[in-house]
Amino acid sequence: MKLRTYKKEFGYSYALGASLVIELLQNRPEDCIVVIFSPAYPDKGGRIAKLCEKYNIPIEENQKFIDMLSPKENCYALAAFSKRERQIGAGKSHVILDSPSDMGNLGAVIRSCAGFGINDVAIVGGGADVFNPKAIRASMGAFFHINAQYFDSITDYLGFFGGNRGIYTFMLGGDHNLADLPVNKNEIYSLVFGNEASGLDYDTYKNIGKSVVIGHSGKIDSLSLPTAAGIALFWFAK
Amino acid sequence: MKLRTYKKEFGYSYALGASLVIELLQNRPEDCIVVIFSPAYPDKGGRIAKLCEKYNIPIEENQKFIDMLSPKENCYALAAFSKRERQIGAGKSHVILDSPSDMGNLGAVIRSCAGFGINDVAIVGGGADVFNPKAIRASMGAFFHINAQYFDSITDYLGFFGGNRGIYTFMLGGDHNLADLPVNKNEIYSLVFGNEASGLDYDTYKNIGKSVVIGHSGKIDSLSLPTAAGIALFWFAK
Repeated sequence: MKLRTYKKEFGYSYALGASLVIELLQNRPEDCIVVIFSPAYPDKGGRIAKLCEKYNIPIEENQKFIDMLSPKENCYALAAFSKRERQIGAGKSHVILDSPSDMGNLGAVIRSCAGFGINDVAIVGGGADVFNPKAIRASMGAFFHINAQYFDSITDYLGFFGGNRGIYTFMLGGDHNLADLPVNKNEIYSLVFGNEASGLDYDTYKNIGKSVVIGHSGKIDSLSLPTAAGIALFWFAK
Repeated sequence: MKLRTYKKEFGYSYALGASLVIELLQNRPEDCIVVIFSPAYPDKGGRIAKLCEKYNIPIEENQKFIDMLSPKENCYALAAFSKRERQIGAGKSHVILDSPSDMGNLGAVIRSCAGFGINDVAIVGGGADVFNPKAIRASMGAFFHINAQYFDSITDYLGFFGGNRGIYTFMLGGDHNLADLPVNKNEIYSLVFGNEASGLDYDTYKNIGKSVVIGHSGKIDSLSLPTAAGIALFWFAK
């Protein structure tokens, strides 16, 4: 295969850096196409090589690819992997991101999801590309633990998963304060977060689930998306 | 004054973008040196101009400065301001960051601090420059609401602020789980967070305050620094 700078329309993406390559090989070996080492990689016979041998994945040495794909990082290893949308589960709790715009935020939310036991992430209304190497890097490899599925709209999502779960929409004018919200351990839930700048569209969401606000002072306009999602995930997981 | 690309040793820094300039002018007008507009700025007679008039701050037009200082942004306005360390308060709760390495994380934590009523941030052991325009931008202007003070070490900090407050050190092996930690509304507290990669040094902190863990799954090595701080701030503020 010819390795090129990542583009959204490609069928493959990259895990940049040895720790991400290990996460990929441990959790999604079937998706890994090739591993590339820098000739300077000090651990060529180590963990990555053993996993590649186990799963019959080729290793190549190519500093040019490393430099091209990871120009700013001190990167010694990378892997190309097949992009595969993984369907989220009907009986599982979900995090839903409506039109997230920042790949770093997307990765950061996925990291918190994996940390708090949510393995299914829905992205509705388009937005940032969850397969972009920047999102995967921001997830610190948690991307390889979760299922991420795109839906055209929240209506589409609800067509599949609307019944029999608690839906909590996080917005500044929410009816319920998170700190007062009781959590039912047996409930399956979906936590919905909007775009970084515009939040959830009130008209779209006013009749969907329960709206929740994470109360904060007037000194800031809003919490950041990863912080809000992290707090909500913590609250529902505790 | 001659505007140059920001360096840590400068006595001034920059607020990049109209919304940050407004936060600066509303909260720290005494620190603002000059405001620069792009000739293309569509709101030259608006809120910024009125605040500059009120506080007698000069406005200049200079696209070259804008391009030099904010090469990647769609930036129409910026301001230079005097860097001034602001002492944190003895009777106030604090957030302490020990050796933070990422300026974006520093700004993100400050945004959450301002959101949850903590106006005093101590940075111990060096680390990222809180005055860097990237940190200020990541704070979304919350930087101009808080006091940030550097201390050489946690020992130095405790020399000033050790008595009569609850000190909570956040670490993976913490003795107390945050979700079980009772919060006393009347307690003045300090929440301490370590470096993104290495956390708090156990030997340094083992006899300081109560150690706290934010429980998470084994699928991730740790929560991100801004997420951990956001969750802790939420818990103590709720």
